This record gives sequence, structure tokens and C-alpha cells, in this order.
Amino acid sequence: AIPRRELAVVQYSSIALILVSMLILVIKIPPKLYFQLWGYGSKWIVPQTKHYSWLKAADVTGVGLDNVVSCPVDEDYRLDADALEKIILDFAKDHTPILGVVAVVGSTEEGAIDPVQKVVALRDKLYNEQGIYFYLHIDAAYGSYARSMYLDEDNNFMPYDQLESVWKKYGVFQGDGEHVSKYVYDVYKAFPEAESITVDPHKMGYVPYAAGGIAIREKRMRDVIGYFPVYVYDKRSGAPATLTPYILEGSKAGATAAAVWTAHRVLPLNVSGYGKLIGRSIEAAQRFYNFLKGLSFNINGTEVEVNPLTDPDFNMVDWTFNIKGNKDLAKMNDLNLKFYQKASFVGGPVYNNDFITSHTDFATDGYGDSPVPYIESLGFSADDYHKETKVGILRACVLTPFLYDEDNFAAYAPKIKSAMEEKLTQILD
Amino acid sequence: AIPRRELAVVQYSSIALILVSMLILVIKIPPKLYFQLWGYGSKWIVPQTKHYSWLKAADVTGVGLDNVVSCPVDEDYRLDADALEKIILDFAKDHTPILGVVAVVGSTEEGAIDPVQKVVALRDKLYNEQGIYFYLHIDAAYGSYARSMYLDEDNNFMPYDQLESVWKKYGVFQGDGEHVSKYVYDVYKAFPEAESITVDPHKMGYVPYAAGGIAIREKRMRDVIGYFPVYVYDKRSGAPATLTPYILEGSKAGATAAAVWTAHRVLPLNVSGYGKLIGRSIEAAQRFYNFLKGLSFNINGTEVEVNPLTDPDFNMVDWTFNIKGNKDLAKMNDLNLKFYQKASFVGGPVYNNDFITSHTDFATDGYGDSPVPYIESLGFSADDYHKETKVGILRACVLTPFLYDEDNFAAYAPKIKSAMEEKLTQILD
Repeated sequence: AIPRRELAVVQYSSIALILVSMLILVIKIPPKLYFQLWGYGSKWIVPQTKHYSWLKAADVTGVGLDNVVSCPVDEDYRLDADALEKIILDFAKDHTPILGVVAVVGSTEEGAIDPVQKVVALRDKLYNEQGIYFYLHIDAAYGSYARSMYLDEDNNFMPYDQLESVWKKYGVFQGDGEHVSKYVYDVYKAFPEAESITVDPHKMGYVPYAAGGIAIREKRMRDVIGYFPVYVYDKRSGAPATLTPYILEGSKAGATAAAVWTAHRVLPLNVSGYGKLIGRSIEAAQRFYNFLKGLSFNINGTEVEVNPLTDPDFNMVDWTFNIKGNKDLAKMNDLNLKFYQKASFVGGPVYNNDFITSHTDFATDGYGDSPVPYIESLGFSADDYHKETKVGILRACVLTPFLYDEDNFAAYAPKIKSAMEEKLTQILD
Repeated sequence: AIPRRELAVVQYSSIALILVSMLILVIKIPPKLYFQLWGYGSKWIVPQTKHYSWLKAADVTGVGLDNVVSCPVDEDYRLDADALEKIILDFAKDHTPILGVVAVVGSTEEGAIDPVQKVVALRDKLYNEQGIYFYLHIDAAYGSYARSMYLDEDNNFMPYDQLESVWKKYGVFQGDGEHVSKYVYDVYKAFPEAESITVDPHKMGYVPYAAGGIAIREKRMRDVIGYFPVYVYDKRSGAPATLTPYILEGSKAGATAAAVWTAHRVLPLNVSGYGKLIGRSIEAAQRFYNFLKGLSFNINGTEVEVNPLTDPDFNMVDWTFNIKGNKDLAKMNDLNLKFYQKASFVGGPVYNNDFITSHTDFATDGYGDSPVPYIESLGFSADDYHKETKVGILRACVLTPFLYDEDNFAAYAPKIKSAMEEKLTQILD
């Protein structure tokens, strides 16, 4: 026989367990504790170069900032496909669902073009080998219109080896040489593999604000998000499908759509229209990049170097100024911030300002260690970057198609140089 | 001594309980089960006359449709404050948090004006008696600009007994009599008690789309939702506060704000400007309502009645046509839908159409039994309404200020009547 004392322990502990179980089932576990115990749900994977609105959207929709996962980028600020594979396999291992993966074509701060073709190949591989599939969204808000460079007048995607001759025929570029790498071409070729693509006419479509777009491969997707106002739609009356049910705003000015439609009629979405316009903006950016590469200043004896960030994938050129030999990152950040202030509305009315540009920070919390190679190339260390938590960058989107012309650029270059020199002199004197 | 058999039962049951507890704590409770066990969270209370975007917003933000609670409206389609009190007390009883209460001023389908003053009084009472407080939002997207009728040229809210003489001075109304009830006046007087108010310049501000607004009493509220793009904002540069961080779109055309600013300069937001414009639209609506009240048709021997829904709170007039003596609600719904089809784009190009109007359904799932008094006044029963699940309504927003003039209206009235007659003849013949 078991002693009464031992039995009592068993009885009391079972009563305690019953009470705990009842408590758990009857008293509500606070949502916060629930998520701490069992995790925060499904993941949305974006590159470090993501537009800030991805965070805002995750916050607003209730997906939550904790579920946005940053994928590292390489030294060209392009999504690192190997790092992406590791992230996906880790999530697959512990059965964390993946809401989707975003590849950026024309990143906000660098105009960088992510390797969509590699992401697609990775997805094919993972699907065939392990049955892992993920939703692919291309954030081509900035870069999408450039796809028109690769479409002939019948809107067929052209082979790479025919591009230069067709571009010559349409006068897309002026100079000789390889204007777009096979890498960038392959990115645009892979577009049809994505489930959805952001297309912003108010960026490289050169149409003013209010127009934004998303292309979806499966039209029925929109029915999932459709809300039909009963005082506008009567389905019995056979009202045609409009945007209203599928956009956040609901009602919206038709002028916006009309403006985009008209622009696409005037400039067709192929090599004869937007392709030509955007090709010229790319050539202008390349001229500006080459101009910066060879540039330096002597400001009353102080030598100032100009250090472009990357050979641009598209039409955006980033750079920094640094005093030759300066090893203090804080000092370099200060110089570039002050330059921006003189080259923007911060310094006063801009009507008489001969050089206006924008400024951003690559900060550790968003970019991780991706800026380290650039920082090291300037003579700083990773530690300097971690200590300062950011590197300030000057940034120019070369939207004008007119600087593609060699003579035009040659006329502007000395004016840009002297405007820069004037600002640097004001700062350093 | 306790028999071994009994002890074994106790032991096994305690082991089973340990396993269940461990399962609950270690294996994840699916979110759906979690919510089924412990409820769906906090509630957002809106009247049955809510704009459909309240549902869309709850869905998009992750609040969830299950957390939107519909408060019944009275026979004038105004929020029923007694029903609201009951809803709030029920939630307070089981400690369900209330995210907020919406009162609508100018409902989408009726132009009805909810008793904001009663909601405020209810909140004061509940707070003093039981410490219950709730966030109050006024959805005055449609009705907000009408508040300018009650502000003198120094923008002070005027006493009720001075209104008619001031309105006479500014020529706000043409006819004599009480143009706005003390009830509606008290609603507008209570506006400052709300935490936030929707104001849509693209509605009664007569400014085209793209402008929408929300007025907040506590400016710091916006910091909770602010997202600052690093490539636009550099706080060290002292950039002034703009809308960008606080709106969903982020960047937006300045033309929108400029248009609203200009309109408010041209027509001040008081009795001398918008007050006059909107007063005239209200008088025009009253003329149209009185015109409909006395209207009937004889279509080749078939008598058609016109039955306005309510004496309008604002400038929106709803009505139905019915064949005299018809007791079949489906038949009446069909008549009004067909009338709408002839009085809209559905029937073809509208340029030569002398009467255009809109149509909506009051359906059981959104409106509950609120339309029953109207339906019964037409000779139908609540059962008819439940069987059909809706009553179709014709709806006119009288936006033109010109029909406020007696002679103008008298010139239009026979044309409106004959346009209606023509459509009814086409339908009934």
C-alpha cells in the first residue's frame, strides 16, 4: 500500500493541474503572451534596400513590423540570392509560413536592380527539390517603365544580341559600347514569372502624381480584396468593372487614369516610345557617373575627393564627398549633410541654385553591413560605421533625357562643377 | 488505505492532465482557435448607415470585420443613442474594449445627421457614473462643410436664435420659416467634443477629387502613425512638417492642398462663404422634397405614387416609386431599379437625359429592421422586407445652389416631372 502522505501529493498536484488547465482555457491569454509563446506568424521578405512604405504597409495591415524580414544585399546593393535561400530554408525548417518575397527593380536610394532571374531560379529549384514555393512580388515602382527598352514596336521582348542594333535604329543611345548589361536584361526578361509587379506612372512614366499601379498575373486576386459600394454598383445593371472596388481610396479622379492612358498613346510602351526616353536618361546617368569618377576639388588648399557609390544599374547616381586623407566618418557625414543643405530648399529658395540634389542615410538598422565594402574603400573601417550607425549619401536621379547628348553634357559639366565648388568653399572656408 | 485501483485512476488522470497542459503550452494554438476561445478583441461601433469604407478599413487594418459593430438607427436613419448605450454597457459588462464610436453627419445614402450631442451626453453620463469613456469620431465627410452656416464672419459659433436674421442678411435662404432644426444645430455645436472628424473637401467643399481630410483634436495623435522616409526627411535640416509621414500615400501632389486652400480663400468657411453656398443647396433640397411629396403620375391609366423616405436632415432626398395599390415589394424594387437604369449611364449616353439619379439598396444585412417603418408606411409588411432582403431606393444629392430660387425651381419642376413620366411610361408600357 502507498502511504497516505504520498497519495495526498499526487491528489493535490492533480488538482493544481486541473486548475491551471482550466485557467488557461477559461481565462484569456493576452494576445501579447500568445504571440510571445507561439511566434508572430507569417513572414514577408524584402531586401535591405526596400522602400520605407513596405514597413508602413506591414504596420497598417496588421501583418506587423516583426514579420518583415530584411534580406541582405551585395556590394552593388542588389538582393543577395544566396542569403535569400538561407532565409527561406530556415523558415521552411521550422514551418514558418512565407507570405512572399519582394525583389526591387530600381531601388529608392540606389536605383539598384535585384536579380529577379536568380530569385525565380531559386524558387524553381526549391519547388522541384523540396516542394517549397513562394509568392514573388517585383517592386518595380521606379524601374518598370524601362522594360519598354526591350520591346520592339510589336511589343515582343527582343533577343539580347539584337538590342544594340535596334537601339541604334531608334536613336536610344548616342555613344557606343554595351549600354545595358546582360544581367539587367535578364532581370527584365524574368518579369512574367512574378505574381505581381508595382508600376508607378508617376516615376519613370513621367506622369504627375496620383497615378500608381500594380500589375497582377491572376486577375481573380483582386476579388479577394474587392469592396463594392452598393450606392455606386448595381450588378444587375451590368456596370463595367472599374478601379473603385480594388483600391484603398475607392472613388478617384478619372483624370489620373486619362493622363496615363494619354501618355502611353503619345509614347508607346516599347523601344519607339518610353524605351527611347528612358534609354537617354540612362545614358545621361552614365555620363554623370563618369563625370563624378574623374572629379576632385582643391578648396583653398584642401583637397576634396568625389567617390561614386556604384556603377549605376539604372539612372540613379549616388556619391559622397570626402576631404582627402580624412579618417573620421562623422566628419565625412557632416560634410555631405552640409552639402545637401546647400543643394536643397534647406539653404533657401532654389530658383537661383545651380545644383540641387537629395540626401539619404544608409543606417545600420536598415542596411546592416551592406555599406561596409564602400566604407572600407574610402579608408574607413566597419567599426567606424557601427560607431556612427550610418553613412550619409548624396543622390541624384538623372531624369532629364537631354544630357544624353555629349555636347549638351559637355556644356553642363563645368557649370555643375563650379556650383559644387562654390558650395564646398562655403562649407570648408 | 485506498485501493490500488483507485490510486491508479488518480495517477493516470494526473498524467493525462500534465500532457494536456504541456500540449497547450508547447504546441501552438492556431490563431483561429485562439480567437474562438477568447473572442475577437476590441470593438469599433458604427451606425447601420455607415459608409462601406468603414468595413474596408477594418478589414485592411487587421481590426477585422467581426469587430465592427452596427448600431441601429431610428426611423429618420439617425443613430439610436439608446441602442448605443445598451451596446456600450454590454461590452463594459464583459470587459470588451471599445476602440471607438462613429457618429455620421451626412450619411452616404440619406444625408442623415446623427445625434452627436446625445452621444456626447451619453459619454459624459457613463464617465461620471461608471468611469466608462470612449473615443468619438464624427464621420462628417459629407456634412462637415455645413458647419460654416453657423459661424459668423469672425468664425464664432452663433446662438440659435440669431441664425435666421444673420442668414437673411447674407441671403443664405430665400423662403421664410425654420430652415434648420434646433436638433441639427445642436449636432454641429457638439463637434468640438469629438476626438477626430472626417472632412472631405471633394464632397460639400466642391473641390475635385484627391482632397480628403481628417481633423484631430490632439495633434500628437499623428506621431503614432508617422513614417518618415529617410531620403526625404532629414530632421537635422529642420524640414517643416508636411503631410507625407501621416498619410497612406506618402508623397502626394501639392496641387491638391493648393486647390483646397484657394477654395477656402475664395469662399470663407463661415456664413459669408460656404455657409451661403450650402444653405442654398439645403433650400433646393427642401424644394425638391416638397415637389416629390405632392407628385403622382397617371401612366396610361396606371397610377404611380411617389414616396419620399424622410424629411431631409441635409441636402439629400431619397424616394421610391410604387404603383398605387401594389403589395408586392419585389415588383416595387424592380420598378425603381428600372427607373434608375433609365436615369443613369446604364441606359446609354446621358448627355440628352433630362433626369439622372442614383440608386441604392437598404438591405437586411446592413440596415437590419430600420427600414421597416418606411416599408410599412407603403403598405408592405416586415415579412415582405425580410423575404426580399432589401428595399431599393432612388437617391438625389441636391448640390446645385441655383434651385434654391423659387422661380428657378418652378421652371425646372415641370421638366423634371415630364422626364420622370417619360421613363415610367417606357417601363410600364
